[in-house]
Formats: sequence, structure tokens, C-alpha cells
Amino acid sequence: MPTAVSPLAPTSVPQMPAIAGVRLATAAAGIKYAGRTDVLLALFDEGTTCAGVFTRSKCPSAPVEWCRANVRNGKARALIVNSGNANAFTGKNGRDAVNFTARLAAKATRCKTNEVLLASTGVIGEPLKASAFDGVMDDMVAGARADRFMEAARAIMTTDTFPKVATAKVKIGKAAVTINGIAKGAGMIAPDMATMLSFIFTDAAISAPALRALLSEAVVDTFNAVTVDGDTSTSDTLLLFATGQAKDAPRIARPSDPKLKTFRAGLHNVLGNLSEQIARDGEGARKLLEIVVEGAKTKESARRIAMSIANSPLVKTAIAGEDANWGRVVMAVGKAGEPADRDRLSIWFGGIRVAHKGARDPAYDEAVVSQTMKKPEISLRVALGMGKGRDRVLTCDLTKEYVAINGDYRS
Amino acid sequence: MPTAVSPLAPTSVPQMPAIAGVRLATAAAGIKYAGRTDVLLALFDEGTTCAGVFTRSKCPSAPVEWCRANVRNGKARALIVNSGNANAFTGKNGRDAVNFTARLAAKATRCKTNEVLLASTGVIGEPLKASAFDGVMDDMVAGARADRFMEAARAIMTTDTFPKVATAKVKIGKAAVTINGIAKGAGMIAPDMATMLSFIFTDAAISAPALRALLSEAVVDTFNAVTVDGDTSTSDTLLLFATGQAKDAPRIARPSDPKLKTFRAGLHNVLGNLSEQIARDGEGARKLLEIVVEGAKTKESARRIAMSIANSPLVKTAIAGEDANWGRVVMAVGKAGEPADRDRLSIWFGGIRVAHKGARDPAYDEAVVSQTMKKPEISLRVALGMGKGRDRVLTCDLTKEYVAINGDYRS
Repeated sequence: MPTAVSPLAPTSVPQMPAIAGVRLATAAAGIKYAGRTDVLLALFDEGTTCAGVFTRSKCPSAPVEWCRANVRNGKARALIVNSGNANAFTGKNGRDAVNFTARLAAKATRCKTNEVLLASTGVIGEPLKASAFDGVMDDMVAGARADRFMEAARAIMTTDTFPKVATAKVKIGKAAVTINGIAKGAGMIAPDMATMLSFIFTDAAISAPALRALLSEAVVDTFNAVTVDGDTSTSDTLLLFATGQAKDAPRIARPSDPKLKTFRAGLHNVLGNLSEQIARDGEGARKLLEIVVEGAKTKESARRIAMSIANSPLVKTAIAGEDANWGRVVMAVGKAGEPADRDRLSIWFGGIRVAHKGARDPAYDEAVVSQTMKKPEISLRVALGMGKGRDRVLTCDLTKEYVAINGDYRS
Repeated sequence: MPTAVSPLAPTSVPQMPAIAGVRLATAAAGIKYAGRTDVLLALFDEGTTCAGVFTRSKCPSAPVEWCRANVRNGKARALIVNSGNANAFTGKNGRDAVNFTARLAAKATRCKTNEVLLASTGVIGEPLKASAFDGVMDDMVAGARADRFMEAARAIMTTDTFPKVATAKVKIGKAAVTINGIAKGAGMIAPDMATMLSFIFTDAAISAPALRALLSEAVVDTFNAVTVDGDTSTSDTLLLFATGQAKDAPRIARPSDPKLKTFRAGLHNVLGNLSEQIARDGEGARKLLEIVVEGAKTKESARRIAMSIANSPLVKTAIAGEDANWGRVVMAVGKAGEPADRDRLSIWFGGIRVAHKGARDPAYDEAVVSQTMKKPEISLRVALGMGKGRDRVLTCDLTKEYVAINGDYRS
């Protein structure tokens, strides 16, 4: 396990306010890690609505299948998350572990099992000993408190080097509403959908169908626009909980309600902030790479080209080597299979145009570009000259540390 | 540039026989490298037919565009290949360089420019100084000889650590026919189509349309079934030349001619041998990984799943770490998006079943599997239990050396 914090970690961490109707507790159940917390329990007051989006993997984990089935009710009273074991590809044992955990939580919190949501992250294919939760559940329920978001973010870390939190204050009508989010990365991050795990909490009063629509909309340019290694987890889970306890919060039934304007923006900001932190904490990452593709035929085409660049090992190793190797960018544009014309391509690193109309820009100064490439945050812009489609994705470089972390992860 | 030969290099190198009607010469034109050859000239007797397959990149190199346009004639008299500069994304300069080189060769060899084929490999985006060929062309034409296949393979290397050659003897009717091939890798290798550069020479007498059909058929399970990093080159070029000079060789007009039976097998073997060598010389490779997927709905589905596994950074780093991490294999199966059922999946490493019906195989002995993972050649088999589709691809592991090679390539 890496211990040094990513050099790309945010320099300031927000104070995470309480959310009325949410209480949190963490515990060290010894699932895999020693000397740290590895279980998170979130308790929600009655009336809390929820929505989720999940991995598109054809081999999802047992908790993902559980959540998919139960989030449809739109009601949540408890969330249990563990790190250290993903409970993925664990067969009947995995389903049994999920059922056991849900029943345990339902009993301890006096709710229905289908109001319990679950998520697990860590090693795939090892049986999860759910009995470990038994020893900590009652204490967690008894000790749950409103102001534990940072502890919650810590308990769900795996190879993450820092806890990821974000918060926003918005208005719905005249009511002040809070949105808090936590997330964990750090490898096996690709869209389709999201990061491995992220949980968003708000005291707004929003119906489950409206929450679903808001969440689906908000992931497009946030979690779905981030990739570390192009590998899609079996466990990707993003859940949004709304307690409805904000003072004077109007009940919102429809996603088109105009009162949602600032909430929508706030949710986008929280998800954008968390997903950027995930790229910043990509395994072994030393550079944050922002890729903007413009002039594509459509936004979807721009996205596919941006992802082709973001997932190219040759582009990512060039960034690690502080090399403005736009030739590899051309390669990645070409392999995306999207409409592109070599002789209309222009490419910028850090605002400096290095290639123009299908050839090296004669004006560019290698020394100036080299300086830009030494920065921890690199922007790469590609103009295709084919249309008006534009998109942006975030990724990180591919370093020897990535190989070291993932070559030694399980053994 | 790496200098140590890949530990996966073949232990024996075949003697490469001459091919009647083919003469080869190499030269050191100083395009990028010092102290080594970097230009190959192949001369073909009149009557030589040819066929080619090329990268599917939307941003192909200037030589690829040249070959695509001219290989249609089906006739070849000269092939010029240089290493050190790919002449890709070089705009008008690139087209000028191609035209200049073709005219130069046509003049020196007294053929038409559209009977000259060209290929370049190396850095993308740097102008190719084609004038460098001017200084070596006449000497190469004068000195071309039949027995230079090994030198030819050396002249086209970039980050390759060993030259790649293969040969086969087959019969067409009663005539003994030879097939020789050379190839170069070593990164930016993905199917769609093939390796970066490979050239196949035979003294069989086969029409250009029949050659085209034979080549398209032969790449499917050879060059198109190999990946190093999933990055598709702008320059991938595979050309097949048939001089028709084998003694008593019957003229073959149609690919369905039954006399082609052993030729077809020999061509497959030569391409299979060369493409395997490319995986063995993948940048930084320490392990050759053979991935067999069976029980898929179709062969195409098995191919997509096998490629998803082969291109997964998490699988490749696990192999580098000698870790039989089948959880990541499940992940890669799941992200392929093809029909799969977690609870029917079985996975073997080196013939040892580690996962069965959606969970860890209780019978497997970690110590035995660990021994298998230490070998330089690892076989990975995945059974999906969905149908009869089967496929096989080759790749290599992802090591710190890959990152080092590609982080320092240009600078």
C-alpha cells in the first residue's frame, strides 16, 4: 500500500457541515487492513429518498446487484460500506454476505432490509466475512453522529492516498440546503460509469424520481468524464440520498422544477470536485491531465476522442516523462475511429500550439513547452476542425509507481 | 533506447534462404540513429505481384496513404523502408518526402513510381528529410543481394531489441516455394490492423487479387490477434510480395485454388511466428501472455473479451507482478460489454483452475499457481459457458520498463 500522499492532492480541505437527517459512524472491523477503519455506516431519518448509478460491468459485484434491486424503492434508512474486500465474484457466498449484512443492519436500525444499501471495495474474488460487521454494528448505530464526513471518507479508502470530500450550499426556493459528498478511487477508474464509490448526501426534499434524473444528468460531465486506467470496476457505485430535513425546504417532485436551478449547479460542482480528486489520486499519478477536444462532429464524438487520448498508455507515459509528444496525441485521435482529418488537426499543450493543420507548428518553442510540461497540471487541447462538438475529460499520467502499486497489490 | 535483448526473444533464429526475384540492400542514412542501418531497399523482378493491409487509424502516415493508393495496381518493383522517422503527421512536407523518395527509387531502379512502395517507422510529427535517401540510393541498388533478410530485419528496428524473421517452405503443385517474412514492433502495437511494419516475400506465382485475399485471411488470427498496449500506430503496414520465380511454380489466379492449401498454412505460420515475436518484444516485456477465451457466444465476442483482458493495465501489471489475480480478469471480462454471466465463469492460469462458476476454486493451491506465474510464458484461459465462440490473442505484461522506455522515447 502506498503511504505518501499524492503530490496532486488538494491543498485545502473543506469543513464538512452536518446534514440534518444523516448520522455517520465508522469502525475497524479488520476485514483486510490493520490499524484503520474499514466500515462506514450512514443512518438516514425516515422519509429519506435515494437514487443511484452503477458500473456497466457485465460482472458486477454482489453489493451492486443488491443496490440495483433495492434503490428502485427510492427509500433509504441505512448505508453500509466496507473497504478491503469488494465482495465481487464471490458467488453464492457473496449473495449470502450481502443478505446477512442487510438483515443485520435492518435489525440494528429497525428498518426494512430493502431500505439498506450496501457497497464494498477492495480485493475481488475473496469471500467477504460478513460476520465481521456483526461485532461492530451495534456500537456504530449507538455512536453515529452528524459530523463525521471526513472519518467516513477515510473509512472507505483503499489505495487512495487522501480522503475525498466536497460540499456545497445552495438554495431551493428560500431554503438553504447543503450537499455533501465523499468518494474513493484510485485505480480501476473509468467511466461506464463512475468512480468506484461515491456517496452524496443532502437535506433537500426531492422525490426519488427527480433525484434519479438529477444524478444521471450530473454524472455525464463529472464522474463519467474521468479515467485513470480505462479499467471499469465491478463495483462502481454512486448513491445520492436526500433527507428532506432542511428548514422550510419545499418538496420537489419533478426534475424540471425551476426551483432546482442552484441545486443542480451545486450537485454538479460537488460531483465535479470529487471526480477531479479521483484523477488527482490516480494510482501513481504525478500529473493531472485535462484533455479538451473541440471541433468534433458531436459532443459524443469529442468524448470518444478525448477518452482515446486519456486511455492511451503512450500518451500517459509521455506526460509522465514531461514530453509534449503530440505525435502520440495524433495516434490516439486516429485510433478513436471518429471523424477526423489529419490535415485539419491542431494541438496545444498548456495553451501553446505545438501542431497546426496536420504538421508541427513552426512557431513553437520547445524550451517554453518543456517548462509547461514540468507543471503538475497539464492541459491538452485538440481542435479537429470538423464541427462544433466539444468535450473535456480528466486523467493522470502513467508512471512506474502505477506499475509498482498494481504489481504488488494482492500478493 | 533499450539495449538489452528481451528475455522472451526466440532462442534460435532460422537461416533465411534467398527468394528468387528479390534482392535486398540496407544503408545507414543517419535519419535518426547513429552507428546503425536505417534504410532498407528491396528490389523485385518484373512480374512481381503485391498486396497490403494497413492501419485503420483515421490519421495515417504519408507512406501509408501512398501504399494504399499504389498497392491497388498489384505490381511492385521496389520497396523502401526507413526507421527513425515515421513521416506521420508531417503535412505537405510528408507528401513531398514520399513523392521525392518514390521518384528517386523509380529512377534508380528504372521502374514506374507507382511500382514503388514505401514505409516509415519512428518518431511521429518530425519532418522526414528524404534527401538522406539520395545519398545512399545508388549504392543500395548496386549492392542489393538475395541473402540479406537478417540485415533487412535489423535496418527496420526502432525500440525492438531483436530482429524478427521467419521462413517456411511449402509446395504449390509440384513446385517448392519459399515464404520469408521480416517484422518490427515494439510498442504502439494493437490490431486494427497489425504490427507497425512487416514485409513478406515469396517466389510463388500468385495473382494480386489472390494475394490480397490470402493476406486478409491470414492476418485475422496472427497480427490482428496481438496487442502490446492497445495503441494503434499511424503507420501499420503489412505487405506481401510474390515474384513468381520459383521453378515450375504454377500461376495461381484465384484464392480458392486448391493448390494453395500448403501455401495458405505456410503463410499463416510465418505471420503467426512474426506476430508472436512482436509480443515477445513488447516494450519492457518480461512475460508473454497467451489469452484463450472459450464458450463465448461467437468468435468475435471471444476476441473482444480476449482483447479487453489483453489491454487491461490492471491485468498486465498483475502479470508483471507474477500475481494470478483472476479478480482483475473478471473485471476485464465484465468491462468488455459482451454477453457473460459471472456465475458461469471459470478461469485458469497455466492450466490450473483458479476460479469456477463465479467464485474462487476451492481446490486451487496458491503455492502451485505462484510457481506457474514465475515462468516467462503464461497461459490464461477463460471459459464463459455461453456458447461455442473461441479465440486466442497474445500480449505481454506491463512493466516499469515500458513506462521508462515510453517516458524517455522522444526527449
